Amino acid sequence: MIRALFFDVFGTLVDWRTSVARESAATLRPLRHDLDWLAFAEAWRARYQPAMEAVRSGARPYVKLDVLHLENLEKILPEFGVSNLPASARVELTRRAWRKLDAWPDVVEGLRLLRQKVLIAPVSNGNISLMADLARHNGIVWDTILGAEIARDYKPSATVYDTACAAFDLPPQQCAMVAAHTGDLQAAAARGLKTVHVARPNENGQGKGEAAPSAPMNLAVRDLLELASVLPS
Amino acid sequence: MIRALFFDVFGTLVDWRTSVARESAATLRPLRHDLDWLAFAEAWRARYQPAMEAVRSGARPYVKLDVLHLENLEKILPEFGVSNLPASARVELTRRAWRKLDAWPDVVEGLRLLRQKVLIAPVSNGNISLMADLARHNGIVWDTILGAEIARDYKPSATVYDTACAAFDLPPQQCAMVAAHTGDLQAAAARGLKTVHVARPNENGQGKGEAAPSAPMNLAVRDLLELASVLPS
Repeated sequence: MIRALFFDVFGTLVDWRTSVARESAATLRPLRHDLDWLAFAEAWRARYQPAMEAVRSGARPYVKLDVLHLENLEKILPEFGVSNLPASARVELTRRAWRKLDAWPDVVEGLRLLRQKVLIAPVSNGNISLMADLARHNGIVWDTILGAEIARDYKPSATVYDTACAAFDLPPQQCAMVAAHTGDLQAAAARGLKTVHVARPNENGQGKGEAAPSAPMNLAVRDLLELASVLPS
Repeated sequence: MIRALFFDVFGTLVDWRTSVARESAATLRPLRHDLDWLAFAEAWRARYQPAMEAVRSGARPYVKLDVLHLENLEKILPEFGVSNLPASARVELTRRAWRKLDAWPDVVEGLRLLRQKVLIAPVSNGNISLMADLARHNGIVWDTILGAEIARDYKPSATVYDTACAAFDLPPQQCAMVAAHTGDLQAAAARGLKTVHVARPNENGQGKGEAAPSAPMNLAVRDLLELASVLPS
């Protein structure tokens, strides 16, 4: 009996790669920069896990993902030959690139249907204000925003999943993590949550994404519409 | 320039008094209890501030308001001559009484209009799961749920207001607290937030509520529809 669904966001609900590329181009092209925008988005994203690891390991205190995204941008700009971007423009680019991410086509309707059955919340590494902006950008209605900022740590740390279940007063067996990433789901399963894998075969480019989980899951679905059709009320 | 509105909930958005009375009656009448239900609701609520004060003072660690509501119920039941209620029924009564609170008539439409202009979130002493249930009961859409559980302290402690602003990455001057209680608003003002008083003249019974603030506020309105009409986009 599932009473709450927790959603990974980057990659699972939103197509970060093409959205970050588009918004980066829209910001930097007028400043006469002409980059390989998809490669730029991928390089930015590639800094994501190492940056969070510093927090997870305890090497630095929790900071919001917005802060890590800005730091990561400042690391990759020289790699792409961009050396003259003022601080305010770097902040604005970070904000714009990561807050206008488009949802995959099934997501908005899928979440609307799922919310008729259970509580729904993002359990993302993104901070609250970022999640709120993404929800508005796409027209998503959450019951609330949970995740890294509530737990003050990053997935796959156990406390992020534990804190999410506790916020809804639910035992982990009544909660399911929904993600397109096997590692996220394995970490949730280790805390007692149920697991739902969503296929996002093109997350990192054509054919570069998890079309299927690489470990056993409670459920694997094609998209959120399929999940809405099979989830008991 | 206001970019987020934070809402007190009990009394400001929902009529706890008649709702708790109704739900208590619906739960206890079938068990052959016949109380003064409004007096019962008022007695339950009267234990609210002293219970939170134990957390605010540091005498006990943060516990969710659900826990305080249950403890307070257990204190007042003997006062009303109810001595035979099993533990499971006390938990169920607490849940039912405080999660089916009806919004005042202006609230749902007022919040819908306000959300077209700014970010909106409850900044209540109620815990996240309680706020999520109240939102569903009334059809309210929040950007997220903030408040006591995020700050792990109770209003009017400064950290509750500070934590809410920080969650939206906003300076306090761009946030307004909306409440029917002068004390809550004064505490918010002390942290730099703007203040909006909403008249709820009958919160504690006919003519027993704040029809007007008892200290200066940035704005005082009749209801949320008036606030929606005067708030700049």
